[in-house]
Formats: sequence, structure tokens, C-alpha cells
Amino acid sequence: MTELALAAFAAERGVHPRTEAKTARFAAFSRRFDARAYLEALQRQGLRWLGRSERSFPPLLRAISDSPSGLFLRGQAPRGLLAQPAVAIVGARACSGYGSQVARMLGRELAAAGLVVVSGLARGVDGEAHRGALDAGGATVAVLGCGVDRDYPAAHAELAARIGASGLIVSEYAPGVEPAPWRFPARNRIVAGLAQATVVVEARERSGALITADFALEEGREVFACPGEITSALSAGTNALLRLGATPLTSSVDVLELFGLEAAVGAEVELGEPARAILERLDRPTSADELVRASGLDAGVAAAALSELELAGLVSTSHGVYRRTGR
Amino acid sequence: MTELALAAFAAERGVHPRTEAKTARFAAFSRRFDARAYLEALQRQGLRWLGRSERSFPPLLRAISDSPSGLFLRGQAPRGLLAQPAVAIVGARACSGYGSQVARMLGRELAAAGLVVVSGLARGVDGEAHRGALDAGGATVAVLGCGVDRDYPAAHAELAARIGASGLIVSEYAPGVEPAPWRFPARNRIVAGLAQATVVVEARERSGALITADFALEEGREVFACPGEITSALSAGTNALLRLGATPLTSSVDVLELFGLEAAVGAEVELGEPARAILERLDRPTSADELVRASGLDAGVAAAALSELELAGLVSTSHGVYRRTGR
Repeated sequence: MTELALAAFAAERGVHPRTEAKTARFAAFSRRFDARAYLEALQRQGLRWLGRSERSFPPLLRAISDSPSGLFLRGQAPRGLLAQPAVAIVGARACSGYGSQVARMLGRELAAAGLVVVSGLARGVDGEAHRGALDAGGATVAVLGCGVDRDYPAAHAELAARIGASGLIVSEYAPGVEPAPWRFPARNRIVAGLAQATVVVEARERSGALITADFALEEGREVFACPGEITSALSAGTNALLRLGATPLTSSVDVLELFGLEAAVGAEVELGEPARAILERLDRPTSADELVRASGLDAGVAAAALSELELAGLVSTSHGVYRRTGR
Repeated sequence: MTELALAAFAAERGVHPRTEAKTARFAAFSRRFDARAYLEALQRQGLRWLGRSERSFPPLLRAISDSPSGLFLRGQAPRGLLAQPAVAIVGARACSGYGSQVARMLGRELAAAGLVVVSGLARGVDGEAHRGALDAGGATVAVLGCGVDRDYPAAHAELAARIGASGLIVSEYAPGVEPAPWRFPARNRIVAGLAQATVVVEARERSGALITADFALEEGREVFACPGEITSALSAGTNALLRLGATPLTSSVDVLELFGLEAAVGAEVELGEPARAILERLDRPTSADELVRASGLDAGVAAAALSELELAGLVSTSHGVYRRTGR
């Protein structure tokens, strides 16, 4: 139970677990630490502990050079979920419409094909990736940079509850630990560490998502970057990753191939005639006005068709621009 | 003058020069061919001939596996222009606003730094690349897939005249040869052959621009592809090129580095306060409405500032979306 003592001590002292393991202070703390009482208190909060030396600790995370002493878990999924094939999807918090649509699409399609989607519960790309996985009825894991009991950011409390209902929220930080800037890069190593592959959807230069990609590269894991327009600062980081040799991601199939998986064949969606006409014209990002003009449909009919396509997950919209985000 | 006879014979027979070189019919044609009269007729039309064996024939084009027997030239530039360091910029005819803006920006910045911009005079990316080079007062070469005297497409007659005033229009096809579908892939090998590097700005799957890229790769020349949104069919070809190992182009500097050149340092543009405020906010494609809202500027002031930025070549617009297209 030294692992748990370490995590508890680090929480009490407000430092990172790895910096304290060999101090005399920790030795003293460890002697008087009541692991059983601590675990019981965790259980009362609906939380669990998974030590690094336990059999069900995810092997990929154990393998990284700076593996955490263990993970606190929140959520209904069995801890075995953490050992299933997983992909990390990360990116900008203040992402563009393109970034959020692609993150959601990838979350949905990769989860539907059976992969666990790992991300950081942040606004923007992270949140959309989790939501996409939930849309598909798939499993998703959120890694926090604060105590596992915290919903951070607060705006994602409801999303965290939905993730916990079928998946897991995990953290190396014990309950009560406050978010702090230095904890997010540390959190990112766990995001990358849990996954065989990391996808960066959209990232500025010097974005935190690039730190996650660096961790993945250091551990020899596959890194995908989504190409984006070279005139958008939000794609500067991802396009720079491509220049550094990251694999360009052009569809979820690129990731699935790495895992030897095939895309989920959804129940064929029955589309009405107007919806099919619009889908044909959506071979690039297009405004509703342009779609109405190009399709020759009545504006009301076109609007209904667009709603139909959005509900079917085939199209998504942001700032009045529609994109095809499904096959 | 066998080279010229070959080109003249192919024009008369309506076939590609290389297929006729060894036929008895060509031998007969060659015996009665009056090269001097032919050259004089060319001159009367303001055209010239540059045979493959002449010293000033561009060495890079001579080096390709299927080098043309020579080139017909139209325009004021000395034929030595064809031996200067050159980059090909190619892409979709029906390109998006993003594609046309990037093509123009690259044409301008690469020409300003001293490179000759080679393209195919087609609508879309080709035309914008030529225009960008002309904007910068640089040299540009248009390679035709029809007789060198033709302005094809007709909509680009004025552009062709501007190109000819300082640069060159070239073709392996003699005056009078009609455009034909099979001539465009043949033309593309000359576009790629004239340049040390080929940039594909935007291309659908199975686009002609990918044929140009293939020629460049076969000859061991550098191929750059501009990343684009994975939800746009117009970037499907370029993103696929990235997956095949093409170098991602994130700015003109990436190309200039290959040539050991530095970006041209333009006269520092003096911008007004509103223009600077808008430029700061243009870190991604943005509508005028959003710019007005974000900058807090009066709509009229913002419109004037945007015009100022467009004139300075720092910003361009398409379908109501503004992009930063210069440094």
C-alpha cells in the first residue's frame, strides 16, 4: 500500500507524488498511514484506487518512463476497461468549428468500432471527443489534472457524470487536490500513456496537446495529426506535427487500421430525398444559403433535411457552416 | 532541326510527338520539311522554338524520362528564364476560397523571393499562382496543353497576355494544335519537369494535379502538399499525398528553405490602427461580421481597414470569409 500512501501524502502536501517518494517526511507519513481507513473513505465517496503493482493496472501506462504510482477511479466501468485498446483524442480548448466537428466524429467512429476514447475532459476538442464516444454508446475515459472527485472544468460536470455512468474518470491525484497549471502536463502523460495512439485534432503552436503528442512519441506510440488550413492559427500546431513526421489523419479508418479494426457498419440510415440531395452537395464546408441555392430546395425543406442529417450524425454545423462528418 | 520537324509533324497529324518519331511517314515528312520557313512563320506570329538539344533548353526538363523534343515559346522573357530556379504550383480548377487564397499567397511570396512560378494557366489554383507571381513583379511560366498560340482557357486570355509581357507561355505543341483531354497529363509532366519542386495546393482525389505530383516524384523532385480540412473533398487529394509521404507545406518558407533562399523582406507596410487591430484577430478564417464584433470597430471603419489589408496583400477574402495570407 506504499503506492496509495504516496498518492495520499502528495495530496496532503500539494506536490507531485514522484518528488516525495524518498524523503524522510514520507517515510514518517507512511508509517502512520491507515490504508484500510483511507480506502473505506474513498469507497464512501464512490471512488476506487488502482495501484501500479495491481494486476489490472493498464500495462501500457505501467510501461511509460514516469508511470504514476496508481490511479484513483470514479465511474461505473470495471477497471478492466483501462486495459482495453484505447486511443487518445486531444486538442485545443478554444477550438474552431472544424476542430469540434472532427473531434466529435472521431470520438463517435472510433468508439463505435470498439476503441476506448481517452481524453482530458477539457473544453473544446477533449469534450467533443468524449461526447462523440458517448453518442456511439461507447466507452470513454477522462483523465483529470486535479483530484479525481473534482469536476474540472465546472462546465463539464454533466459530461463527467455521463462519462462516469458507463466509463471512468481517473486521476493520479487524490480527492481534494486542486487543479494547478503544472498538473496538466503531468496529466497529459497519463492520457498518452493509456493509449496505443494519440490523435491531435487541432492545436495552436505551443499548445498543451503537443505536450501529449511529445509524451506519446517518447514512448514510441503512434501520433496522428489532423491536417488543417495553413491560414488558421488553430492548425499551426497540428500542421507543424505533420512536418515533424506525425501521421496525417484523414479519417477514422487511418486509426482503425493501426488496431486491425474495421469501421462499425451502422444500421443503414434511411434518408429522405431532400436529405440525400443535400448530402451529395456537402463535399466541402458550405453555408445553409449556398446549400439551398445549389440544391434548388425550398428553404424550409432544406432546413428539415439538415436537421435530419444532424440527428443521423452525418452532418454537423458550426457558425452557420455545415460539414459532412460521417459516412 | 529534326526536333522541330517532329513537333511540326505531330501538330499536322494531331498526335503526340513521341509516338511518331520512328515512323516512315515522319521520315518522308522530315525530308521535305523546311525548317527555316517554319521558323520564319513562327517569328511572324511572335513565337520562338527552343529545341531539346539547344544549350539554353532547361536542364531539369531535359533530364526527365520523357523529355519533349522542344518547346514553343511565347512571351517577352529571355529563354534563359526557363533555366532559373523554379517551383510548380498546381491544384484544382474548381478550388475553394482557401485554395485560391493560398495559391495566390504562395505565387506572390515565392516569386518575390526570386523563384520562377510554373503552372498550367488553368482556372482555379493555376491562375491564382500565376497572378500571385505577377502581383510580386516576379516571373512566371505557363505551360499549355494545346498549341502555344492558343489562350486556353479563353477566360484567361488577359492573364496570358500579362504573363507573356514579362514571362513565358510554353508548349510542346505547335501553333494551331487544339486542346484535347490526353494532352493535359502530357502537359503536366512538363510543368513538373521544369521545376525543382511541385506544390499541390488543393486537389480532389483523382485530380490532374496529382498526376503532376506523380511525375515530380518519379523524377525524384520534391513534392509539397498543403494540408486542408479532412471534411473538404477539395483537400482529399492533398491530404492523401501527405499520407503517401509528401512534405506538408505550412508556409512559403518551407519551399524557400529547399532552395536555400530567404523570404523577401517587403517594404514594411504602414498600417492604420484599425487595420492592425483586425489583423491581430485574423488568426483563423473569420467573417466580416465576426471581425466587427470582436474588434469593437464601427462597421464602416472595419470595412475600410479590410480594404487596406487586402491592398497590402496581407488579407484575402472569399465567400465573405477573410483569411490572413501574408506576414
